[in-house]
Amino acid sequence: MPANTANAMERKTGIALWRQVADRIRQGIGSGEFDGDGRLPPETALAERFGINRHTVRSAIAALVQEGVLRAEQGRGTFIQRRRRFTYPISARTRFSEGLRDQARDRRGHLLAHARETASPRVAEALGIPEDDPVIRLETLSEADGRPVSRATSWFQAERFSGIADAFASSGSITVALRDHGVADYLRKSTIVSARHAESADLADLKLAPGAIVLVAVALNVDPDGRPVQFSETRFAADRVELSVSE
Amino acid sequence: MPANTANAMERKTGIALWRQVADRIRQGIGSGEFDGDGRLPPETALAERFGINRHTVRSAIAALVQEGVLRAEQGRGTFIQRRRRFTYPISARTRFSEGLRDQARDRRGHLLAHARETASPRVAEALGIPEDDPVIRLETLSEADGRPVSRATSWFQAERFSGIADAFASSGSITVALRDHGVADYLRKSTIVSARHAESADLADLKLAPGAIVLVAVALNVDPDGRPVQFSETRFAADRVELSVSE
Repeated sequence: MPANTANAMERKTGIALWRQVADRIRQGIGSGEFDGDGRLPPETALAERFGINRHTVRSAIAALVQEGVLRAEQGRGTFIQRRRRFTYPISARTRFSEGLRDQARDRRGHLLAHARETASPRVAEALGIPEDDPVIRLETLSEADGRPVSRATSWFQAERFSGIADAFASSGSITVALRDHGVADYLRKSTIVSARHAESADLADLKLAPGAIVLVAVALNVDPDGRPVQFSETRFAADRVELSVSE
Repeated sequence: MPANTANAMERKTGIALWRQVADRIRQGIGSGEFDGDGRLPPETALAERFGINRHTVRSAIAALVQEGVLRAEQGRGTFIQRRRRFTYPISARTRFSEGLRDQARDRRGHLLAHARETASPRVAEALGIPEDDPVIRLETLSEADGRPVSRATSWFQAERFSGIADAFASSGSITVALRDHGVADYLRKSTIVSARHAESADLADLKLAPGAIVLVAVALNVDPDGRPVQFSETRFAADRVELSVSE
């Protein structure tokens, strides 16, 4: 296939050609463009298609092998690592573990760090407490079948949820940790979804390559009386997760 | 402020330093980091902060001026162009024009192209019709107050919605175009949200810089009897739009 406008790489964008090609191949894999025998087209075909040289194709493939998107088999070619995208439902009943129940055998949350601090204006407004009131911040990582799926920062009112860090550390579950603090049930009140490039710390925790995208969900959970219990910002690896909103 | 780990740019990523710095400054603007007098810190301060030279900072600033994120004023400095992000609600009652009613005075849809084609397996499944049945595809662009907000591809059953392209072209509204075809009301049944780098064609239509991110919403609208009327994939410019899900 000759290079055409849709496939042509942009020059002088500040993004190296090999990285643009890697992005295009990753997208192509996501959209099923290379479906069939699960093998990536040969370097020569890809070079022609994108209008670039083989050396650049090879750099792109090497990067995708390192990301775990492709797998090179000596003498056989380069294969696509089939990895399903998780579909994470957002609804009034949103819970990480239940949301992925049918999609992953093993789902767990890890406590990376926690701190007691004073509420910023944004956190105070969300939790409905005075500014500078004490809050507990949890930094957590969620995995499904051993793959990092999301990285979250959550805030809880310190007085009501004084032992939330320990409770989460031992259970790996926000639902269980809230129950330990007398919140038998909770509802997702609102979720704002945006997308951006992952920041350095998230890249490492989520095992993402530089330039990777995260879906960001800023959410408020409330108890059955409507009192805010958890305000959180969760970064989902966009190449592993999509969010589902149904009526 | 000295260069630290959080601010340090990644080397050997295939993304030029100036582009990484531009991304970081854009993010910083988005998160309110440079709030205050609306002026960007001086080049020397930014160079020190990111641990890079002034030439690189200047390239990053030039790119952001071109994107319309910054505005240079001769002799006065570089200013942040305040532009609100639109919050687009996703619910059973999702409609573009109504969704942004309180946020933009002027909201309009443009028909870029349309075609009659046969339904792909994915489109057929979504619309509940046999594969290869005729469908009408609309390529549309939505603007709010003159800014491109989203670029969508929609499919409609050809027989039931034979005049949908003309109806949309003259009204600029899917709601009106469906009403013209006897669909007085419709509901959003499902939305799947993901994120990726914008493709070349979308970059141009949405006036985005290379490397820009789009939020992708794949959605199904049904009539009050539950019959699918519209299947669509909408790409929102991630730096201009966030999606809101509320109970």
